[in-house]
Formats: sequence, C-alpha cells, structure tokens
Amino acid sequence: MSKLLFVNASQIVTCAGPARARHGSEMAEAEVLSGDVAVAVADGRIVAVGPTASTAAAVPGASEVDCGGRILTPGLIDSHTHALFGRPRFEEQELRATGVPYMEIARRGGGIHASVRDLRGRSDDELVELTLPRLQRLASYGATTVEVKSGYGLTVHDELRSLDVIRRLQALTPLRLVPTWLGAHEIPLEYRETAVARADYVRLLTEEMLPAVVSQGVARFADIFCETGVFTIEESRHLLSAAAAAGLGLKLHADELETSGGAELAAELGAASADHLAAISPEGVRQLAASDTVATLLPGTMFFLGRTRQAPARELIAAGAAVALATDFNPGTSPTVNLPLVLTLGVSQLHMSVAEVMTAVTVNAAAALGLVSRTGQLAPGFSADLALFDAADVRELPYWYGDRLCHATWARGQPCHRP
Amino acid sequence: MSKLLFVNASQIVTCAGPARARHGSEMAEAEVLSGDVAVAVADGRIVAVGPTASTAAAVPGASEVDCGGRILTPGLIDSHTHALFGRPRFEEQELRATGVPYMEIARRGGGIHASVRDLRGRSDDELVELTLPRLQRLASYGATTVEVKSGYGLTVHDELRSLDVIRRLQALTPLRLVPTWLGAHEIPLEYRETAVARADYVRLLTEEMLPAVVSQGVARFADIFCETGVFTIEESRHLLSAAAAAGLGLKLHADELETSGGAELAAELGAASADHLAAISPEGVRQLAASDTVATLLPGTMFFLGRTRQAPARELIAAGAAVALATDFNPGTSPTVNLPLVLTLGVSQLHMSVAEVMTAVTVNAAAALGLVSRTGQLAPGFSADLALFDAADVRELPYWYGDRLCHATWARGQPCHRP
Repeated sequence: MSKLLFVNASQIVTCAGPARARHGSEMAEAEVLSGDVAVAVADGRIVAVGPTASTAAAVPGASEVDCGGRILTPGLIDSHTHALFGRPRFEEQELRATGVPYMEIARRGGGIHASVRDLRGRSDDELVELTLPRLQRLASYGATTVEVKSGYGLTVHDELRSLDVIRRLQALTPLRLVPTWLGAHEIPLEYRETAVARADYVRLLTEEMLPAVVSQGVARFADIFCETGVFTIEESRHLLSAAAAAGLGLKLHADELETSGGAELAAELGAASADHLAAISPEGVRQLAASDTVATLLPGTMFFLGRTRQAPARELIAAGAAVALATDFNPGTSPTVNLPLVLTLGVSQLHMSVAEVMTAVTVNAAAALGLVSRTGQLAPGFSADLALFDAADVRELPYWYGDRLCHATWARGQPCHRP
Repeated sequence: MSKLLFVNASQIVTCAGPARARHGSEMAEAEVLSGDVAVAVADGRIVAVGPTASTAAAVPGASEVDCGGRILTPGLIDSHTHALFGRPRFEEQELRATGVPYMEIARRGGGIHASVRDLRGRSDDELVELTLPRLQRLASYGATTVEVKSGYGLTVHDELRSLDVIRRLQALTPLRLVPTWLGAHEIPLEYRETAVARADYVRLLTEEMLPAVVSQGVARFADIFCETGVFTIEESRHLLSAAAAAGLGLKLHADELETSGGAELAAELGAASADHLAAISPEGVRQLAASDTVATLLPGTMFFLGRTRQAPARELIAAGAAVALATDFNPGTSPTVNLPLVLTLGVSQLHMSVAEVMTAVTVNAAAALGLVSRTGQLAPGFSADLALFDAADVRELPYWYGDRLCHATWARGQPCHRP
C-alpha cells in the first residue's frame, strides 16, 4: 500500500482528457496546471490530481515527493525502438556522410544484415547485458514506457529468443516494455538468391514464425518493413492479416524513403500505427486521418541520415490524423536515447507546437501501443508513470536541445530513473 | 607539483601535429593512438604521450587515472557562445516554428532586444548565478575551453559589466574562458529612430566603448554582427579596424542568413575567425581559404531555427579553409550546451568525416581563439586539457547523438567536470 504525494512542481503537465488518441486540433490540448497543485499516487496508480489540499486528502499518510519547482509530466512513451541489438554500427555514419551509398555499405557487410549476423552470434545473456544499460539510458531522458522490436534474428530460433530476451529484460527494469515481433524487418541474406527463396521467407514468417510467436505469447504487435526494395504491399497485407487473425496488434514501417502505399495499407488493416511516413502520399495522409491508426513520426532518423525531407506533420494534423513521435533508437539510422531531442525536432523541424509534441509522446504514443487507457496521462485511474524535469516551463523541454533535463522518473509508482 | 598518468584508454585521440590551424585536407589528420598508451601530466601541462612504460617514466610518482577502457581526447573547445544571458527565450521557438516571422517576434518584444532588456535589469551577482551552472553544463559534455561573448548590454556600462561578470566567472570555474566584446551585437532600440542615431551608436562603440574595454583589459576579441539589417560591411570594417589597432583579436558574425560579404571582410582584416557562413558566397569561400581566418560553422543554429540550408563545409574544406565547429549557445537561436551533438551535425548534416569534426572542435577551435599553441592537442608542452568519454572508439562521439557520453574532464590538469 505505498502512497506518494508529488508537491511543489512549477507546472504539472497532465495531458488529461479522453482515453483515446487525439486527432488533429485535439493535439493542441495538453493540459498544464500550475499554482499549488499536486499528484496523489496509491498502489501504482494515480488517484488524484489538483489543488494540493484536496489531493493530499486522497492519500493520507503518503510520502511526500518534493518536486523542487521542477515540472512534472506523464512518463514519456517511446513507441518505436529497435533497442535490442549487439554491436553499434558507428562506422556507417561517416561512410554515408561522405557519400558512400547504402547499397555499397551493405555490400561491404554493413546495414541491417550486419546487425543480424552480429545478433545471431551472441548468447541471450550477452544480449541482456548489452541492452539493459541502453534501456536505462532511455529512461534517464524521461521515458517510462518503451516499445522494443525484434528483427535482427530473422530465423524462427533467433526471433523467438530475441523476444524472450525482451521478456527477461522486463524482469530487470521498472520500465514498461512493449514487445513487437519484426521478423519481417528484411529478407535475410540466405533467402535473397531467387524470387522463390523470397517467397519461402514470407511463407516461413506466416506459417512458422508467426504461430510460434503467438503460441509463446511473447509479442503484443507484429510489424513489417513495407518499403520499396524490402517487403511489398501485397506481402505486407498477407503477413499482417495473418497476424491480426492470430490476435496481434499491427504496426508498419511505411513510406519511409519512397512512397509505396504503406500508410493506406495501415489504415485499411486498422493498424495501431504507421511509422516513418517521410514519403507519405497525399492520399495516404487522407486515409490515415480518416482512420484510428496513429501516424508515428521519427524525425531523428531523417536528421541522422542527413536528409532534409521530413514527414509532413502539419499536413497530417491539419487533415485530422493522430501524430506520435518516437526515437527509432537503432544501431544504423537513429542511435539516440534522447526522446526530448525528438521533441526539439518536432517543433523546430516539423513545425509542431509544444502542446502537440507533448501529446505526441504521451497520449498518442500510448495509443500507438494499445495503452491509451493505461498510461500517457496524469489523471485518476492511470498508471503512476511520471517524469520530473529540471525546468520551470514545459516549453523548456524542446528548447534546451540535446541537454538531459530529466531529474527522475517513476513507472507504476516505482522509482525508474533516479537522480 | 601534481603529476597525473592517464592509463588504460581504449583510444587516445591526440590531434597532435603542428601548432597552427589545419587547412583543407590537413583536417583529416586527427591522430588516434591505441594499444598500451598513456598521457603524462605535470604541473598542468602534458609532458609525454605514447607507450605506457616510457610515458610513465616521465612522471615518477604520478597519480594514476584509470580511463577504464574509455576514450581520451583533448578537452573540447567551444569557440563561439553567448553563454552570458538572463532569461531563456523559450517562447520564441514555438512562435517561429508555427510561422511567426522574426520581425513580428521582435515587435512583440522578443529577439535580441528582449535579452538586452533582461540583462540590463539584472545585478552582476544574478548574472554570475545564472551563468555559472550553464558553464558547468557545457563542461559536462566535454568542453574545457569556452569563448563567452558580451552583447546583451549595448551600453558602455552594461557591456563593461558583462565582461566583468565573465572575469568573475573565470575565478569560479576551472574552465578556460575566453572573453569577447560584442557591443556590436545589434543597434539598441534607443538608437533605432533615425540614421543619425544609428551613426551615433557606431560612434559610441568606436570612440567610447572600445577604449573602455581595452583600457580595462577585459576582452581578448572584438566581434560584430555583420549581416543585412544589422551592421553593414562599412560599419564592420570601421569598428574592427579600430579594435585591431587597439590590440584586440577580431571575429565576425558573417553571412549567417544572407550573403553580405562578411567572409571576405574577415579575410581582408585578418580576423581570427568568421562565424556562421550559411550564406557565404563562392568568392567568400575562396578568400577565406586563402587566409588564416578560421571558418567557424554553427550548424546547431540552422537546425534549431528549422532551416535546411547549412554552411558549405565540404566546399570550404575542398578550397583549403580551416573549419571549426561550435555550439553558438545562446537564448534565442541555439540553446544547446551539447558540443558533441554539434559533431553529429558536422558529420550527418555537413558531411564532414569524424577526423575533420574532431579537428574542428580541438586544433581549429583553438586557432579561432588564438590558443593554438596552448590547447587542442594532447602533445608535450600543451595545457593538460583532457576529456574522457564513455565510448571505445572516437567514431561513437558523433554517433550516439544527443546522449551525454562525457565521463570527466580536466582543465590545466585540474578536475573540471567530475563523474
């Protein structure tokens, strides 16, 4: 029966409101309380938010947490990461920057296949040891919920053990981890010789890997890299339909570098999210806006790749879509653990308002993970997931770019990142 | 007689070489030692670098610093900051991002004039109190030398006390601070009515403020915002010629947003650096390359402003210029203390190699501050300014973008940032 009372915050960003994704102009609603206000927590849930006196009355005998004039927000939600990987591929950044094309980097043994080869050669224990400190770094910037994808295994055995490593990590960290199966991250090298071999991998995914993942209960979502040169629209529809029938939620890597209709497919299938979208078509914008699928934008990836084209956040919001932001933390194209830096990208590069980027890493990110009624808001009934930042105003979060303002976080009422 | 021996680094990035700015292809020379190597320090200076056994022999009885497999580099040098300011102007980021033009923000009381009004209303003690923690944050990302400009005073009294506050701060921090007088940051509001009043401010700068700054010995450089709508080429030549005659080194804010010939003027006057340069002309590139003036690029500013145009780093290097990188840390257009994030921008956005960006924040940044024979290299005779990063390879510094990898720094052999 542990009770906490958070007092003396300069602002409490509650993001309180309906427990559903916020679309279009609703994204500008990110409630901020100031004055003599508090948050009461009991048994891992928020029980009251508001004026200190009445809020305190809801948790008699609670331990007080003095926020010291800092701002208190919902624990941030990173709804798209590939945090489970072995060796960082730092050599590729310089090659790419100095003009070596991706296909040439791949020919030299780099790219996703390098991470696949690396992961297959490592024990589960090694993977746990490498990944846990990375999760802790994500937490140190304010995240309390982190989606983690498999996708560097690409065999039944290695995908299952990747998901099992995520399960083991969940027992080692107070962060809430959301496991996503991404067996369809790439066609593995051993299947790339002929069109028949390619079809064999799609069959392996659908007929062997998917049933095994489902029977072990180790993933909440199925994801696929639907992109020119990787998986086609037809392959994506085929695999994701089977995944939905088997009870998994759906996600797509869609329209990242070239327009291929991934956004439209996500809307058609009722996916929880369509991710990337730097090359989304106007029709894709319309269809996503008319759907319940969250548009998850990953501006750090475009930034790190040195591209100037970003996803059309303003068009998506104007059309009525629900936009989320995430790090895309991965060893090739977005090696960042700093989710607040993605807020900076959201404002400075995607022209979103501060309220919109806050909604994008709380309520809408929760919706992208099927957790919209559980986390992402400081409101009674929600999980006690909170983050405390060294700032007096929420507008400072995207402003002091690249700095770590996070002071402490709590997940389910337990300390997650400590000062 | 304090002696230190740094051992057990995975790499020692020495940047050793001639004590002068590195031009063009020389920038790719950033020496990296690995294996059983060490750095010996005595009385605040580096006395030996190389194989551990012989290096240790140079400092008998030294205290050992175990680098723990991390990488050791020269302390980073941030050669362009406006770290001395009062209130952060966080509200302007969102206004700008959502389409409010700068002139409108200025009309609403924002922009540089807001910081001027704010600084004038604060006591020296307040300014020290606000700035010291910001310098400590800069240090926590690896900087050991930081240039700090005045420029939010814009009266004889407020510019002198700004520079005096920097002098007071130097007594409170082990960081090496380099004070720059930027009385020509903007035409203050009280001089903007007529052309005559404008000329009066230039006269005040040249005939009153400059002699006062020089007589008090509180600045090493004079700088001017030479840009369309701010100070003209003629005004800049006039003021900087007087500053050079009075013994100050010269810097220019040049060709930031529009091409105005600032780079050419910097070369003509033999300035230590020309800074910004996002809009430099091809002729400006040629003239800088043929001069000893360092081209100091500030890609964080363009990033934060949401612009896609960056300074032409590759053209500058190809032409033979010496390029430095800095944060431009300031409350309006670049509120970052994370100099390694500027390395990321250098590689990902400016297409520089890792060796080039390392040269840009060590040897060439030192040259931009007139300190090229004192700091920026781990080599005998140089100041013992060192930074230790949680990484095994120098290529990880720009790679893990937005994270704080700095573990500890030393300035003049004294602990500067501690774990």
